[in-house]
Amino acid sequence: TQSSHRLLAYSDALLSIIATVMILPVAHTKMEADEELDDNLQLLLGTKVAVYLMTFLIVTVAWAAHILFQVIVRIDDTLALLNLACMMLITLLPYTFSLMANFPAHVLGILLFCGCVMVIGLIQSVIVLYAFGRPFLLQHQIQSCEDRSVYRHHILKVLLRVPVMCLLAAVCSFFCYQLSYVLLALVIFLPYISPAEEDPEQVMFYTFLPSEPLSKERVEAFSDGVYAIVATLLILDISEDNVPDPASVQQHFNGSLVAALRSYGSEYLAYLGSFATVGLLWFAHHSLFLQVSRATRAMGLLNTLSLAFVGGLPLAFRLTHELPLAALRDERRAVQASCVLVFGAGVFQLATWVAALQGGGRRTLRPAVRYGGPEHVFMLAKLALYPAVALAAFLLTCVLSRFSVTIFHLMEIATPLAFLLLRLMVRFASALLKHL
Amino acid sequence: TQSSHRLLAYSDALLSIIATVMILPVAHTKMEADEELDDNLQLLLGTKVAVYLMTFLIVTVAWAAHILFQVIVRIDDTLALLNLACMMLITLLPYTFSLMANFPAHVLGILLFCGCVMVIGLIQSVIVLYAFGRPFLLQHQIQSCEDRSVYRHHILKVLLRVPVMCLLAAVCSFFCYQLSYVLLALVIFLPYISPAEEDPEQVMFYTFLPSEPLSKERVEAFSDGVYAIVATLLILDISEDNVPDPASVQQHFNGSLVAALRSYGSEYLAYLGSFATVGLLWFAHHSLFLQVSRATRAMGLLNTLSLAFVGGLPLAFRLTHELPLAALRDERRAVQASCVLVFGAGVFQLATWVAALQGGGRRTLRPAVRYGGPEHVFMLAKLALYPAVALAAFLLTCVLSRFSVTIFHLMEIATPLAFLLLRLMVRFASALLKHL
Ligand SMILES: [K+]
Ligand SMILES: [K+]
Ligand SMILES: [K+]
Ligand SMILES: [K+]
Ligand SMILES: [K+]
Ligand SMILES: [K+]
Ligand SMILES: [K+]
Repeated sequence: TQSSHRLLAYSDALLSIIATVMILPVAHTKMEADEELDDNLQLLLGTKVAVYLMTFLIVTVAWAAHILFQVIVRIDDTLALLNLACMMLITLLPYTFSLMANFPAHVLGILLFCGCVMVIGLIQSVIVLYAFGRPFLLQHQIQSCEDRSVYRHHILKVLLRVPVMCLLAAVCSFFCYQLSYVLLALVIFLPYISPAEEDPEQVMFYTFLPSEPLSKERVEAFSDGVYAIVATLLILDISEDNVPDPASVQQHFNGSLVAALRSYGSEYLAYLGSFATVGLLWFAHHSLFLQVSRATRAMGLLNTLSLAFVGGLPLAFRLTHELPLAALRDERRAVQASCVLVFGAGVFQLATWVAALQGGGRRTLRPAVRYGGPEHVFMLAKLALYPAVALAAFLLTCVLSRFSVTIFHLMEIATPLAFLLLRLMVRFASALLKHL
Repeated sequence: TQSSHRLLAYSDALLSIIATVMILPVAHTKMEADEELDDNLQLLLGTKVAVYLMTFLIVTVAWAAHILFQVIVRIDDTLALLNLACMMLITLLPYTFSLMANFPAHVLGILLFCGCVMVIGLIQSVIVLYAFGRPFLLQHQIQSCEDRSVYRHHILKVLLRVPVMCLLAAVCSFFCYQLSYVLLALVIFLPYISPAEEDPEQVMFYTFLPSEPLSKERVEAFSDGVYAIVATLLILDISEDNVPDPASVQQHFNGSLVAALRSYGSEYLAYLGSFATVGLLWFAHHSLFLQVSRATRAMGLLNTLSLAFVGGLPLAFRLTHELPLAALRDERRAVQASCVLVFGAGVFQLATWVAALQGGGRRTLRPAVRYGGPEHVFMLAKLALYPAVALAAFLLTCVLSRFSVTIFHLMEIATPLAFLLLRLMVRFASALLKHL
């Protein structure tokens, strides 16, 4: 037997990558220089964005269910292999979504998805039954408890809620596939809307023990995974597309590599700007969660929504540096779409903090950032910076549509400087306050 | 001030993804069905593989250098932002490698790479100086020490070794670029071959305190990142290429989606086989590191080499499921290349354990897997399984070249069953031994 810590960390890494990686097919949709964002392309993009979003949200549900390894704190080889089987099935979910998005009226996509989820639920139930049959695998509190079957029953009930909904959806699909989709949408928001009878303090979904809410560490690990994969997906684009080949350097630039690279100048700028945006959004997230002592259900949902927008940022990068070639009208729309992505990522971070401030933040926040705390205003400024800047850029592009790409890149590069300015201002203000 | 734990975890995630993601350009090299693996294609593939390998190894060096955040255990906003700048520069390294690989005789690639590394070294030095100017950020042992400047001097010396080598390489590139490449190759292996005077016990490269070797947790986190990204890159292929579009289903399969999906049967099998291979290699790694109490320098190098082969596995997947279309001769060679990748990943894991067994493993291993320990033979079997199977598959394809793809897929799917068989045999054998 072994501590389950590394198993959980590995699963979290897998899940955050699965959640995010489906943005790549969206970002790599071929956009010809001479065609506008026409209806066909919009339909294709819409389908792929839907697949990405559905994958992101359902993987978040799977991640939340994985909390069972916080109850099972020691594992043996059997549990490790069962967990790998579970992960393999989760990697198939994006594929079933692709089928559903391409053949929405066909039952096969729905059936495959529901089948996957039911098998996942089955394996998780086997894991729970196996572990409760060997109590030394369980966490101390439950291990020393007289009546473990109450816990087992409760955990199974929480775990099987989702597969049962999927069974219903699968059956429905034969009569009315629209109803199936409604049921599947319910699955995604189930953890957030289910009655809170189990945890009267409204502390986090999927809590097995009222004393132990969703571990903040796991929220951080999952978020880190999303930010990390987004930041590094960007290098793929630049390393693949912006390396000139020797023949074209000889032909177009008289053999001057420097001149060839100079022609990519704006793309390097776009890359640095995008990386800075992702990095600073991580920084704001990091600053916020340092001050969070507990996560409520609403905060979990808002954080997930913020992460879904962060996962979309590679699309923003792609849109803003591919489209200078395309028509003016589309250029503005592409930049506006990118502003919406940045705005969404930032504003849901801010909303997470606002949700934490409910009731004065006594249960959820450290004193420093509660109302009247010394860092309250600084935190507000950090979290409001990106939404404000993105909104301003959006409005500017409406007026100055000719310069929309320039505006966006200026925004991406100026914001880190604004962060530094903010720090200096705060330091100055607090020095001033001390003097008064 | 804040604990640096999450910063380190995020950096580790970023680094493991950067190390691995450059395999995607290799795997996605266009291979036409009607052309053989001709010379041009081989040159292109060779270049991309070189970029991948160089990126992997240099990122490992950067990861090792990042241990400075084990000395700086608390951070403030300034350090967090400096670290993000450092990460941004590290993401540029793959790009400079692409330039070097495409224009090997041009100094520009070498200069850009060396420039990046020197700026990274500069930022890291600033981080160290900043932190030593605020001792409350440092770890307890150093904080309470009288003469901190000895530590500062030692850390700076270790950190600046790599940038200084790069400065030399940059200067050399103007006279003799071949010599520069030799120097850069030295940089990669410097941590493993530098004199061990600092740590007389031969315990891990880049140790700042003899009492505190490279944290096993960080080796595990980095390895987990590599395994996780490899496992999930596979889903991209299947979700993008194996979803039929409605028009072609109508045209080729009389509108039967089931028939269309059935035509992909062998690719699903290939996907499941590849995921199982990655999963079980992770499982073997996990089993091994549970029994490792300390990592030596040689073990670190062997583990890195194993991970470099693991990072190549998406290529094996691509090769074995794209090439049934191609000519017979190439099919066999593709399968053999895949066998080499699996063999390499497995055999270097085994070698890590063998290196740990040096001197009876008294410092490096837990008693259970040392010579004569109860799990010694089981560990040997677990680690030897993949190398043995891959070798057998390789030899079989030499004899039965017509069935090489079938052999490879059978191998991938049969090995998990062999793992289960192994467990049963061990259980049976230990029961038998008890009776005797
Ligand atoms: K949860
Ligand atoms: K809990
Ligand atoms: K590009
Ligand atoms: K931290
Ligand atoms: K190290
Ligand atoms: K150390
Ligand atoms: K495929």
